[in-house]
Amino acid sequence: MIFASDNWSGAHPAVNEALAKAADGMAAAYGASDIDKAVEQRFNEVFEREVAVYFVGTGTAANSLAFAAVNRPGGVVMCHREAHVIEDECGAPEFFTHGARMAPVDGAGGRLDPENLRRELKRFRPGFVHAGQPMAVTLSQATEAGTLYATDEIEAIAAIAHEHDLSLHMDGARFANALAATNSSPAEMTWRAGVDILSFGATKNGCWCAEAVVFFDPEKARQFPYIRKRGAQLFSKTRFMAAQFMAYLEGDLWLELAGHSNAMADELRAGIAASSHARLAWPTRSNELFAVFETATAERLRREGAVFYDWNPPHDGSVPVGENEMLARLVTSWSTRRDDVSHFVELIQ
Amino acid sequence: MIFASDNWSGAHPAVNEALAKAADGMAAAYGASDIDKAVEQRFNEVFEREVAVYFVGTGTAANSLAFAAVNRPGGVVMCHREAHVIEDECGAPEFFTHGARMAPVDGAGGRLDPENLRRELKRFRPGFVHAGQPMAVTLSQATEAGTLYATDEIEAIAAIAHEHDLSLHMDGARFANALAATNSSPAEMTWRAGVDILSFGATKNGCWCAEAVVFFDPEKARQFPYIRKRGAQLFSKTRFMAAQFMAYLEGDLWLELAGHSNAMADELRAGIAASSHARLAWPTRSNELFAVFETATAERLRREGAVFYDWNPPHDGSVPVGENEMLARLVTSWSTRRDDVSHFVELIQ
Amino acid sequence: MIFASDNWSGAHPAVNEALAKAADGMAAAYGASDIDKAVEQRFNEVFEREVAVYFVGTGTAANSLAFAAVNRPGGVVMCHREAHVIEDECGAPEFFTHGARMAPVDGAGGRLDPENLRRELKRFRPGFVHAGQPMAVTLSQATEAGTLYATDEIEAIAAIAHEHDLSLHMDGARFANALAATNSSPAEMTWRAGVDILSFGATKNGCWCAEAVVFFDPEKARQFPYIRKRGAQLFSKTRFMAAQFMAYLEGDLWLELAGHSNAMADELRAGIAASSHARLAWPTRSNELFAVFETATAERLRREGAVFYDWNPPHDGSVPVGENEMLARLVTSWSTRRDDVSHFVELIQ
Amino acid sequence: MIFASDNWSGAHPAVNEALAKAADGMAAAYGASDIDKAVEQRFNEVFEREVAVYFVGTGTAANSLAFAAVNRPGGVVMCHREAHVIEDECGAPEFFTHGARMAPVDGAGGRLDPENLRRELKRFRPGFVHAGQPMAVTLSQATEAGTLYATDEIEAIAAIAHEHDLSLHMDGARFANALAATNSSPAEMTWRAGVDILSFGATKNGCWCAEAVVFFDPEKARQFPYIRKRGAQLFSKTRFMAAQFMAYLEGDLWLELAGHSNAMADELRAGIAASSHARLAWPTRSNELFAVFETATAERLRREGAVFYDWNPPHDGSVPVGENEMLARLVTSWSTRRDDVSHFVELIQ
Repeated sequence: MIFASDNWSGAHPAVNEALAKAADGMAAAYGASDIDKAVEQRFNEVFEREVAVYFVGTGTAANSLAFAAVNRPGGVVMCHREAHVIEDECGAPEFFTHGARMAPVDGAGGRLDPENLRRELKRFRPGFVHAGQPMAVTLSQATEAGTLYATDEIEAIAAIAHEHDLSLHMDGARFANALAATNSSPAEMTWRAGVDILSFGATKNGCWCAEAVVFFDPEKARQFPYIRKRGAQLFSKTRFMAAQFMAYLEGDLWLELAGHSNAMADELRAGIAASSHARLAWPTRSNELFAVFETATAERLRREGAVFYDWNPPHDGSVPVGENEMLARLVTSWSTRRDDVSHFVELIQ
Repeated sequence: MIFASDNWSGAHPAVNEALAKAADGMAAAYGASDIDKAVEQRFNEVFEREVAVYFVGTGTAANSLAFAAVNRPGGVVMCHREAHVIEDECGAPEFFTHGARMAPVDGAGGRLDPENLRRELKRFRPGFVHAGQPMAVTLSQATEAGTLYATDEIEAIAAIAHEHDLSLHMDGARFANALAATNSSPAEMTWRAGVDILSFGATKNGCWCAEAVVFFDPEKARQFPYIRKRGAQLFSKTRFMAAQFMAYLEGDLWLELAGHSNAMADELRAGIAASSHARLAWPTRSNELFAVFETATAERLRREGAVFYDWNPPHDGSVPVGENEMLARLVTSWSTRRDDVSHFVELIQ
Repeated sequence: MIFASDNWSGAHPAVNEALAKAADGMAAAYGASDIDKAVEQRFNEVFEREVAVYFVGTGTAANSLAFAAVNRPGGVVMCHREAHVIEDECGAPEFFTHGARMAPVDGAGGRLDPENLRRELKRFRPGFVHAGQPMAVTLSQATEAGTLYATDEIEAIAAIAHEHDLSLHMDGARFANALAATNSSPAEMTWRAGVDILSFGATKNGCWCAEAVVFFDPEKARQFPYIRKRGAQLFSKTRFMAAQFMAYLEGDLWLELAGHSNAMADELRAGIAASSHARLAWPTRSNELFAVFETATAERLRREGAVFYDWNPPHDGSVPVGENEMLARLVTSWSTRRDDVSHFVELIQ
Repeated sequence: MIFASDNWSGAHPAVNEALAKAADGMAAAYGASDIDKAVEQRFNEVFEREVAVYFVGTGTAANSLAFAAVNRPGGVVMCHREAHVIEDECGAPEFFTHGARMAPVDGAGGRLDPENLRRELKRFRPGFVHAGQPMAVTLSQATEAGTLYATDEIEAIAAIAHEHDLSLHMDGARFANALAATNSSPAEMTWRAGVDILSFGATKNGCWCAEAVVFFDPEKARQFPYIRKRGAQLFSKTRFMAAQFMAYLEGDLWLELAGHSNAMADELRAGIAASSHARLAWPTRSNELFAVFETATAERLRREGAVFYDWNPPHDGSVPVGENEMLARLVTSWSTRRDDVSHFVELIQ
């Protein structure tokens, strides 16, 4: 009953097979091999347009280097107050951008609120050097709160970003889960809605280590090869990452895996909603859910082998957690077993 | 006939098997799983003492984050003038240390010359803030020039470093090749000779992506978990790296692979020494060699399928390259085939 | 009628005289001259204990380098949401610390709220690298909102900071104004209340360019000489700054000047409170005040020659500004003329 | 007999008068006052074209921020091996550029050798990310070694820089001394010879604190206002710096002062050349000179009150210093007294 994080899962057999197959012989290093080129082509197909794609090793690297690519001196990134880039990357975005500020914007359910975004941007007057200068807006899809943006919500945020001459970045650590939950196409959810750069995560959903930065405007990527190398994220044997992506994107494996993950979360959500010892903290749709448990219940579940994390409540005070309660995050993955879910649901009733 | 670089090789079957085996089920992320702990223990055994070991994704990351761990404001790293950290990491060491200077020290055959090192250090007067302050000495073993330091040479450099209160770092991207060529033990070549921090590379020698920073004084690593995470080098599914290391270090596989690689280079060296169209640029002992080819010969070899890089000659002018000549670097690997070597040697006669 | 900022004032005659006197002859550069030493001694007297004092050129430098001195990898500074270090330094604090995060904490009237501070700190679990690690708390005295902390309020915040092993920094760009308004002693307002590092500003209050970083624990300053030089803030002719400080601190000139400045603000406050076209946005006590003007009134005042800035309202929504209104900041200085104040007060009735 | 450095001098009376005059009344801060504008216009006249000029507080800031303005990821600055930016700025250039490398180029007499420069640049192959990418060439005029570049030498270096799409920066900490020694015009020595950015120093030659970055192509300065503010070098009361520049540039005061300084150095040079206890280490022409003294002579001079620094010999070994000898640097300034020079010359015979 491991619901700690989707990165507690391993790698899908298809990914391992692809790796074993790629292991033989010699191939050009640093992204120049045939399989690297094939993956680049595959990304063009997935996104229905030419993209510039760069592999990196971690989601933190993807986000941080994406910001570095579009940064300006005194740059500011507008992001949700509980965004991963603020709360969970140990300052890497600030570090890789040499100090760009991650400016928190409030919004219900982990989603950037367009009106708040607009109000925050209004605080920056053009040419007023003291305040610095916004350079990007970032949103996560699925969000850190397990919620999703509808396509038109992304469009609304993109419109604001572009009005202010800012790049729109999407943190897609759980991009596949968002696609699987909405039946949107990759193109619809990104560049057609106005996204300029995507952190495309595959690690959590069946790969070992496969993350990519996808630029929908290749011009924005012009200095990225140097940015990536300087950032120690240019891997020598890139075919090991390319092979994972090939297997991952083959025949919609990625969407199937995400679909399973989401379905497992649906069952957990239903079980918690039906429980008298727990309640869902807010509605979610992807493979993450947040629940308020009685402390005693949480302890009992953990004694029975359930693994899940304590979580910080939102800053906006929208989720009251009582004295004898705790807020828990539960995450399912491509390898979550239905039996574990059923058992957990039983235990919680 | 690929002699471009040892990172053109793939992964050893044992490494792939270990990965496949690790792929199943759930395991704690971010270094907390059983296999992570087992690898840490294995490193203690390999080095015959307790060490603090941290996985990272690239050799550039290992070197850069190691420097970050011991840096001081205005810090200076003394290194060979043609060191990888100067010439081939796109400024990553300077970037991750926020601007530490890589100060070039001359020395024959890619080896730091102790007397030159001492003279350069003398230029820094204690407390004279304008010059900055040295904070580390780094040497590569095997060196970028394919040569090796004898244990007592390392000791001599360590003595100078420690006299000046500097950490001694070893860039061990080809550490196994150095061990295999000298029959030294890992302990003898490192902490017993005075090395404080080692970049332990396994990627070039049979793994996909397996690098580690090894601190012989765990106290120096106190802030390293934050340094690594901020540097976007904390991988979530660390067991994928741990599994590689387990296979790599099992039953001396790593030394066998390096031994093969060195032996292949020996044959190439012998063949070039015997050729009338080429000459060895300087003596080497590991899996790298440098040769001056007639331009016509180089072109002919390449037409026949040989792959090797043009190389910049040393700054010290010790390797004259004529008008109709070129300097080439050739590197062998664990997967270099004897047939390829023989064929190359024939072609060059 | 210039109420734009106290840095629109020039330099006090005593400061100019001191400069002219120091101009002759030769003196050791970089802080080693007799007058430099005399100022250091003067600071000891002012603060009634031994301090380590370092001159820098701007308040932004003082704050940023102070943070750099106590930073840790992944470091986080807790500060008020509308602090100068967030809103008005163009990312310099993040830049000089290589990406420390300025974490916004809410609080009424520009003052850090201890309860909110404690709640924000609770979000950081020890050793949880993802969140980074708090390294300092900073407060401004007087605040950016023109308010003041009482001594026991500083003590309360210091207690929280020290419980969490964090340095407490005070941004004293208007330190003299705070002292003059409260009759506290420099010692009472700083180290006796738990402040570890003070940005001591003199520029706004009668000097040309005189800022200092004062460490109450000299041990924390150990690497500061290198941090300052690397930060391009080590001036060669430090006696030009020392001379300003000598004149500034002589015979309580600094407190007299601040007293005048505060008194001028008091008259403005009284005038605005009595006006039917304007209202004070919140109570202030130092030389800054904030008023909501009818837009028409603001335009009329500006036509008559009044200079003041439009200001962003607090994030917390506590200051409603109507459609036909604007929020203005007014600042007085040591050289503000009573006539200008009287004239402004007349105009606003 | 102070020959330690020209920054041991104070400020010229005309500079003090200008400051006193500027001290009264209110003026727009942060570079927006009338006197700021007047100085900008004065710079246009001095350089016979429109320039973009930005005041900063130190020469280190001028150089470092200039590099930051033209940096690229993985950027490399080509500079003389003994350049101030390498040897005397505590890593500030690396710091402000987030790790650009200062790549040392050898050359006799402290001057970049064009052939060596070309050879070093050749080591960088276009698009080869590992090596990083050159972004600027910098030379000092007068050099750190007290020598000068002839105009055509600057042109030769500019041609190489521009061939490689690199900005040419001139460190003009002693720019006036170079002009005074050669009777070149400011335009001839800079943009007409191909210089793109100049660090214009006035501090050493009669001001308190007056440095400027001058962009001959204002487009290169587009982001500089943010770069300067983020770098904590935007002073609030810029008129204090503007006033210094006004006095300094009025009626060629700056060139007269530099002329005196150079003349004093000429007398010292003649005296040392005639001495049997000392010899000039190499020929110099500005206000710096380098001499090899018998150790006993140096001690005697110091006992008599002479102040001068020990100096590190050039890396190229061109200046042998015997066992009983030391290498000294002597610097004269606008306020060096003829009597001191005569007395020193007597003592050394």
